[in-house]
Amino acid sequence: MAGEFELIKRYFADRGGGAGVVLGVGDDAALLDVPEGHELVAATDTIVAGVHFPEDCPARAIGHRALAVNLSDLAAMGAEPRWALLALTLPAEDPRWLEQFSAGFHALAARSGSALVGGDTTRGPLAITVTALGSVPRGTALRRDGARAGDALCVSGTLGDAAAGLGLFRGDFTTRVPGVHPLILRFEFPEPRLALGRALCGVATACIDVSDGLLADVGHLLEASGVGARLEVDAVPLSVPMELAIPAERRRALALAGGDDYELAFSCAESAVEGLAARAAELGVQVTRIGRIEQAAGLRCVDAEGAAFDPGARGYEHFR
Amino acid sequence: MAGEFELIKRYFADRGGGAGVVLGVGDDAALLDVPEGHELVAATDTIVAGVHFPEDCPARAIGHRALAVNLSDLAAMGAEPRWALLALTLPAEDPRWLEQFSAGFHALAARSGSALVGGDTTRGPLAITVTALGSVPRGTALRRDGARAGDALCVSGTLGDAAAGLGLFRGDFTTRVPGVHPLILRFEFPEPRLALGRALCGVATACIDVSDGLLADVGHLLEASGVGARLEVDAVPLSVPMELAIPAERRRALALAGGDDYELAFSCAESAVEGLAARAAELGVQVTRIGRIEQAAGLRCVDAEGAAFDPGARGYEHFR
Repeated sequence: MAGEFELIKRYFADRGGGAGVVLGVGDDAALLDVPEGHELVAATDTIVAGVHFPEDCPARAIGHRALAVNLSDLAAMGAEPRWALLALTLPAEDPRWLEQFSAGFHALAARSGSALVGGDTTRGPLAITVTALGSVPRGTALRRDGARAGDALCVSGTLGDAAAGLGLFRGDFTTRVPGVHPLILRFEFPEPRLALGRALCGVATACIDVSDGLLADVGHLLEASGVGARLEVDAVPLSVPMELAIPAERRRALALAGGDDYELAFSCAESAVEGLAARAAELGVQVTRIGRIEQAAGLRCVDAEGAAFDPGARGYEHFR
Repeated sequence: MAGEFELIKRYFADRGGGAGVVLGVGDDAALLDVPEGHELVAATDTIVAGVHFPEDCPARAIGHRALAVNLSDLAAMGAEPRWALLALTLPAEDPRWLEQFSAGFHALAARSGSALVGGDTTRGPLAITVTALGSVPRGTALRRDGARAGDALCVSGTLGDAAAGLGLFRGDFTTRVPGVHPLILRFEFPEPRLALGRALCGVATACIDVSDGLLADVGHLLEASGVGARLEVDAVPLSVPMELAIPAERRRALALAGGDDYELAFSCAESAVEGLAARAAELGVQVTRIGRIEQAAGLRCVDAEGAAFDPGARGYEHFR
């Protein structure tokens, strides 16, 4: 850490351990040992108060989320997390906030096997940039560019929950929902699909995490692969809390265009879907087939009757 | 890049190439090959408008600086830069600003051998977090914790220039200095001492980069090494522009406590100083012996007559 306030040191001191950590927090840079025969996987993402999360979002959730959004990028590569760097910009040094933030960060770090090995603390408007570093056995990483016509298009978990939760938190739907709500928790504590990502290596032909919204992110996968897809909008999985808490006419838009779910969208051979779904179930994750990769570019949405469906907003074009 | 604005894509698209880049900008994460027998070296630092640089600092300088401060951390480890991740938070998308920023960033990236392999663009108050990744042959990295009593204490380049330049830019000394001034350039375009850092491997016993100010950073080195030092304040090297442009009574404080010079401070055997200085001269960098490591903890400043000198402010305690 370059920021040398004692208080911050206490929350982000070198916790020792961490496989492959030759030198962690406290020097000019970290020294790390990437396992032999592995490629290094590196992702960085920033979350900004008032842009990516409400200013009054619980600090514990912000700490979790800052790491989770980066681990999700590793998950989408099929990588195993190893190390993390935390660049924290804070308007002031608030011990209670720091305690909660670090608790959220460290809990997910420990659970995912990510050792905090360095970072920086600066004064400024609240924003957090995490760099997640992981590894994959050489040549096995999932990429966006391998989808082929005839593949199935699948997604993990349920979609739209995080956007619905953010809406509830903000009072978009009815009154602001007080206290703990499962949809709000989905926004606040997204779960990176790391185990599923690793299970997809060698099976999925392309993969991306759903951060901007299903349509936008599947669009990126299709573009990278030079193919198109037919997406069955009624097959997109919704959660029970979504069905209970969100007006029916809002659900589909949230599931198609709402961001922040951090599920994985991927393509694979049709013959692989059943086996993958069974393997995913063992990992506690649902996998749903939602469409098919086609040769012609573009994403064609169809309803349950096979009629063309115009989704309207195609997810965020997120410069946000 | 997660931010998908076309304009930003244009400035930070995958430029191809870069040793060890299996997959660069454009997927969920970068895939990188660390050379066999090498450790990965990772550092991250944020610079925030109005905190680390004036709001009206030229965009080209901001782009250079965001990378330079991180490369300086690699230099202090004796590492070779390989890859960089850029997390850019912008209040708006200004093509002219982006063009200049990216020119500054890419020029230093190319010159230092750092391939831009990923990043993120978000909307928010102007701040830039770069993660620099490099490598060192296993076991050869410079660290902060190896200084031993009897070692010489040395520093590269001249000190206080960047702080003097920032002062000139702000009009702290006389009137605001217009146009190009060598001291302002030292603040705007700090030069990471990468070649010197590599030359120090196997010779220096401890090393740190001077980002917070000489006294503060030497203090970190001493603390990590569990030793103290005697620092000859009149031996601290000043530049010609400093002597010409800055009032005599301000120079010493700038050189001792001014941050942002990104020179290297290091310890080495007394017998190695001469050889190092000669090697550094070949690399176009001056190396000056400024003191001696001692057993007793603490940093003792003395003047030319050997009398104790109270430096006052000990550099930034930088939570800034």
